[in-house]
Amino acid sequence: MAELNRLQAAFKQSTYQLANHGTRNAGVLKQAFEDIADDVESDLYGSGQVIEEFQEKMAAFLGKETAVFFPSGTMAQQIALRIWCDDKGLKRVAYHPLSHLEIHEEDGLKELHGIESVYLTDPDRVVELKDVAELDEEVAVVLLELPQREIGGQLPSFETLEQISHYCRENQIKLHLDGARLLEVTPYYEKSAAEICALFDSVYLSLYKGIGGIAGAILAGDEAFAKQSKVWKRRHGGDLISLYPYIISADYSFDERSGKMGQYYEAAKRVAALFNSCQDIATLPEVPVSNMFHVHFSHPKEEIEPVIVELEQETGIGLTSYLKEIDSGSCYFEMSMGDRYAEIPADLVQQAFKRLDQKMKERFSE
Amino acid sequence: MAELNRLQAAFKQSTYQLANHGTRNAGVLKQAFEDIADDVESDLYGSGQVIEEFQEKMAAFLGKETAVFFPSGTMAQQIALRIWCDDKGLKRVAYHPLSHLEIHEEDGLKELHGIESVYLTDPDRVVELKDVAELDEEVAVVLLELPQREIGGQLPSFETLEQISHYCRENQIKLHLDGARLLEVTPYYEKSAAEICALFDSVYLSLYKGIGGIAGAILAGDEAFAKQSKVWKRRHGGDLISLYPYIISADYSFDERSGKMGQYYEAAKRVAALFNSCQDIATLPEVPVSNMFHVHFSHPKEEIEPVIVELEQETGIGLTSYLKEIDSGSCYFEMSMGDRYAEIPADLVQQAFKRLDQKMKERFSE
Repeated sequence: MAELNRLQAAFKQSTYQLANHGTRNAGVLKQAFEDIADDVESDLYGSGQVIEEFQEKMAAFLGKETAVFFPSGTMAQQIALRIWCDDKGLKRVAYHPLSHLEIHEEDGLKELHGIESVYLTDPDRVVELKDVAELDEEVAVVLLELPQREIGGQLPSFETLEQISHYCRENQIKLHLDGARLLEVTPYYEKSAAEICALFDSVYLSLYKGIGGIAGAILAGDEAFAKQSKVWKRRHGGDLISLYPYIISADYSFDERSGKMGQYYEAAKRVAALFNSCQDIATLPEVPVSNMFHVHFSHPKEEIEPVIVELEQETGIGLTSYLKEIDSGSCYFEMSMGDRYAEIPADLVQQAFKRLDQKMKERFSE
Repeated sequence: MAELNRLQAAFKQSTYQLANHGTRNAGVLKQAFEDIADDVESDLYGSGQVIEEFQEKMAAFLGKETAVFFPSGTMAQQIALRIWCDDKGLKRVAYHPLSHLEIHEEDGLKELHGIESVYLTDPDRVVELKDVAELDEEVAVVLLELPQREIGGQLPSFETLEQISHYCRENQIKLHLDGARLLEVTPYYEKSAAEICALFDSVYLSLYKGIGGIAGAILAGDEAFAKQSKVWKRRHGGDLISLYPYIISADYSFDERSGKMGQYYEAAKRVAALFNSCQDIATLPEVPVSNMFHVHFSHPKEEIEPVIVELEQETGIGLTSYLKEIDSGSCYFEMSMGDRYAEIPADLVQQAFKRLDQKMKERFSE
């Protein structure tokens, strides 16, 4: 076990934490199972009441014919893209250069599926219609991630989504939604999940981000797509004898939190404004469009770390457990608002940000 | 949800069941977590105390440098074979024609990894030294499954294993153990798991068969092998944010049952003898060499089904919930002895088999 560094330790010892739902621990599972009877039967290799009922519930929620539970989004999305590539007989897909598939999956799409990817845009902005319409190479499928996590969770307008969807349909390009944080964008768009999903041929939804389950994902689409996805799930080694520990906790968490996305979104806007009121701190985006944003500091990581450690120790409010270096002169961390923010007395939050601004001024003003 | 057929219903309603550990239900998870504190922290993408400690425990138990937890054996074994193939620059492996990889994984090895397989033997017998020594084509790795499940759980002699291991080392062929039921063969071989594993370069162990966890697998080998396997685990979508529901239950079940393999083996021999005492019933193997065996009937499935339904209803002892047709004149089912057998009063077992023999005689004697 790696020792905790100073920032991790200070964060862990803080009384309150601004972001997320809470510590990922055994209590999350035990709470979800508290009211589950011992004789509730396990799913069995993708069959059984516990998995089928949840899949039907998710299909209805997303407005798709069929939904399939997967152990992970990594598995679900590679499979979705593979199905659409096989469908067209063309192993090429297009996505944002900071897509999860491009930077977090050890090139699984290429190494396991032999699928080539082309970038839709520059890394620092969201996808627009022209990016899709002006692609140099033919592709089988376009993947859009809503919100675009690695740039702070930014979003194209809903009109842009409609235009891209229309263009793809006209041009026999499948459109896949990386909806890891789909529910989290519904308040900004003022659309239901199903209204957003209607623009896409296939949809992935994560069950442990805003929803706050333990792990797992949903892949939704039409019947034929779902059927193929189950074959690939088995090939990937994801058709486990029992997935109920994830399914039952996902179902519990979905019921618990799917109605709270507006609350998380409002919290994100409030807290981003507080960060932006501090010297040399700016959020990306400036005004969040979901429950998430990035907090950027225009100073080196080594100089910001002690400021945050001190602040967490003095105020008891944990901002972050890590800082990520952008370059030698700046750093950032990610915030995803969840249940915990509402547990903090409002005046403590105000005081903490006042103190943060003071500290930044003390350290960085001439 | 599919309706239960008559045999499934009769089995489910029986008071006792001869085989396995018990119903796969939420109670299995709840029991494993009963003494786990709420603040036990989740693993995080393969790191953290809960996963690292269990992996170290399994590495020590198997006598290997490193062990890695996987969500499934399907994933673990494809990855093991891929690593050894890449190592040799040759995408060809050899295994038994009824290997799990060949018949239960939708050709994942071929479809995801582009690996070709050659058969070591005819389907109806275990692998011998000459099968490996006389392979027509060069292979990167040989996979041996102990016991060979699809033929009732048969085993080569330990001397044969030693010879194959020696031959493979001499000839730069890697040797991989499909040890889905590894612990279950230790009483017959009178060897420890580590003594068996010492003959192999890499080892897969299932955590939900004899051990009786919820799901999950261990893949063990040297440090370099383990490191590569983690990269492939991520590519497959198996590097979940949290695997602790499986790990904690596997650890609990391992402590509970790893010492009981001798008991299950003895029960298998006793129960197989009882089946063999009945008219037109024969087990494969005749004398089990692990906790498992197959029960063969020399009559059509449609004629055996009512016999078993009646027997289960009359005696309250469940033999099986299914019958698998071999051809129009014979059928079989699989038995894996576990905790449940010891719960049945011995005289009830004797009476049930007497009744089974009577019924078979009544129905099938001229």
